[in-house]
Amino acid sequence: MNAPVTLPPLPTVADVEAAAKRLRGIAAPTPLVESPLLNEILGCRLFVKAETLQLTGSFKFRGAYNRLCQLSADERKRGVVAFSSGNHAQGVAYAARLCGMPAVIVMPSDAPQIKVANTRAYGAEVVLYDRWKESREGIATKYMQDRGMVLVPPFDDPHIICGQGTVGLEVDAQLAERGLVPDIITAGSSGGGLISGIALVMESRHPKTEVYAGEPKDFDDITRSLSAGSKQKVAADAPPSFCDALMAPTPGDITFAVMRRVLKGGITASDAEVEVAMATAFHYLKLVIEPGGAAALAALLHRRDMIKGKTVVAVASGGNVDAALFSQILARTAPIS
Amino acid sequence: MNAPVTLPPLPTVADVEAAAKRLRGIAAPTPLVESPLLNEILGCRLFVKAETLQLTGSFKFRGAYNRLCQLSADERKRGVVAFSSGNHAQGVAYAARLCGMPAVIVMPSDAPQIKVANTRAYGAEVVLYDRWKESREGIATKYMQDRGMVLVPPFDDPHIICGQGTVGLEVDAQLAERGLVPDIITAGSSGGGLISGIALVMESRHPKTEVYAGEPKDFDDITRSLSAGSKQKVAADAPPSFCDALMAPTPGDITFAVMRRVLKGGITASDAEVEVAMATAFHYLKLVIEPGGAAALAALLHRRDMIKGKTVVAVASGGNVDAALFSQILARTAPIS
Repeated sequence: MNAPVTLPPLPTVADVEAAAKRLRGIAAPTPLVESPLLNEILGCRLFVKAETLQLTGSFKFRGAYNRLCQLSADERKRGVVAFSSGNHAQGVAYAARLCGMPAVIVMPSDAPQIKVANTRAYGAEVVLYDRWKESREGIATKYMQDRGMVLVPPFDDPHIICGQGTVGLEVDAQLAERGLVPDIITAGSSGGGLISGIALVMESRHPKTEVYAGEPKDFDDITRSLSAGSKQKVAADAPPSFCDALMAPTPGDITFAVMRRVLKGGITASDAEVEVAMATAFHYLKLVIEPGGAAALAALLHRRDMIKGKTVVAVASGGNVDAALFSQILARTAPIS
Repeated sequence: MNAPVTLPPLPTVADVEAAAKRLRGIAAPTPLVESPLLNEILGCRLFVKAETLQLTGSFKFRGAYNRLCQLSADERKRGVVAFSSGNHAQGVAYAARLCGMPAVIVMPSDAPQIKVANTRAYGAEVVLYDRWKESREGIATKYMQDRGMVLVPPFDDPHIICGQGTVGLEVDAQLAERGLVPDIITAGSSGGGLISGIALVMESRHPKTEVYAGEPKDFDDITRSLSAGSKQKVAADAPPSFCDALMAPTPGDITFAVMRRVLKGGITASDAEVEVAMATAFHYLKLVIEPGGAAALAALLHRRDMIKGKTVVAVASGGNVDAALFSQILARTAPIS
């Protein structure tokens, strides 16, 4: 049993719409990509929302900018601190640069090289820590105390959730142009910020749309939490997931409250299924998707009965994958057939 | 010296706008993708128009559909024939399927596997020929005579040019949303259909924009033709280019007339520069670009002085590259730095 948590009022679709106004002309509009050949194989109409093409290579920039642009002049002077395995890191680093404030990012020393290098290139100060021996929260707290920096949480924050939710507004508008409404939508879920924001949009505009959290099989805390009706945790000694972007051990309090109200449930994918999704995206959609970014797509591709005849959307949440890993996967993995 | 050619009236921007109406809701809107990190490295604002994400994986679908949708009921019954190393093949095959007509595609037996397989998957009848011993024109003529099929030329046709030109209309609208006008625009050029169509748009809307044909160094017939002021040919015994999509040996008559009037010239890239462009697109833009689709980008990336401080656009014209080649390139090639 979880201890009861007292939450502030949950964000609403109106808050997501306000975030969209802040991001207008700042975030990149990303396409809904489909392949007639893949649609035929699957017997459905599958769209991939390519947040891989978002500035910084993942959706995380949306939430980070929506949070940072609302900081006071005084807070901007002191700057922000965040901890992240990489995509939130880059999102916060670039948003901080655009807003003209310093940023410290606490990253695990085993994060993908491309994510560490890019975070530095955006101008942030990167502090590496040992995932097994050190506390990232402890390190971040030190920067909050010593330099008065504001902590930018990766998901459990209304402004972050609403920034990410603008993905849902875009999907809705892009499908409407084609005269479509989604039957099913899913996105890779770590702490649940992205799928919660999308859920707020779908709940308000298309209450019949089924919204799912997409997770790796080995980090299925949201799926189990939604089934159980209370927050569940990944085992403390679980090895790092192949989907490095999806390793939050448990949902956030705010995100869980939204997900519990709106989501139909969670769907998971094995590492092998994620690889097939990455190869399929390369072959049919010409998209570079990182493992965590492909988990939701993988979960759909391997549930043919669920998607048959439907209009389905998978958000490809990030594309920050090292070239070595990507080429290994292409060499050993065939697309779905 | 070329023999004088009598041409019909050249297509205009109004024809491109009419093509855009026909393609509305049919072709996929494709994004303009940029990377803040890449912009910083280059000291310019570089946008890649990702026609890799167009249906069939290249811009060719636009021209093919614009041509096929205007055929008469009688012509549709008999169907179409085309010859192509792969992207025009797929564009025609899928457009024929949408328009409900049969299609025969004559393809070289050394075309990339992905292009042959996909052309078949779109429902076309593929006829393979030996690039060195057989005449593709001869084979196509046989289908025109025997089955009354309409030949769909790859580039030297006003409807094809105008369909491809809709790429230029989209670029213009997408830059306008950002308050920008392109200083320079380039696209991979084989016979010149795509860049001619784009040129019609730029000439009318932004006459100061410099428009360039992007070519591989080993198939630089447009570049040399524009310099010479008359159509030049690639040597008849030239080996196949690494950029398999850009192997037309000489510009078309209509395309050359447009290019000669509008283009500033041609810019070329070596195979090694094309590989760097492909790796750069993977790393910074998360795009899968095939060699021919990356030639224009490669030519820009290696002309730093020319692009410095400017708003530049490279069209990534196609993404149909075999996984084996793509992973080899990633493994051996670093992005630009």
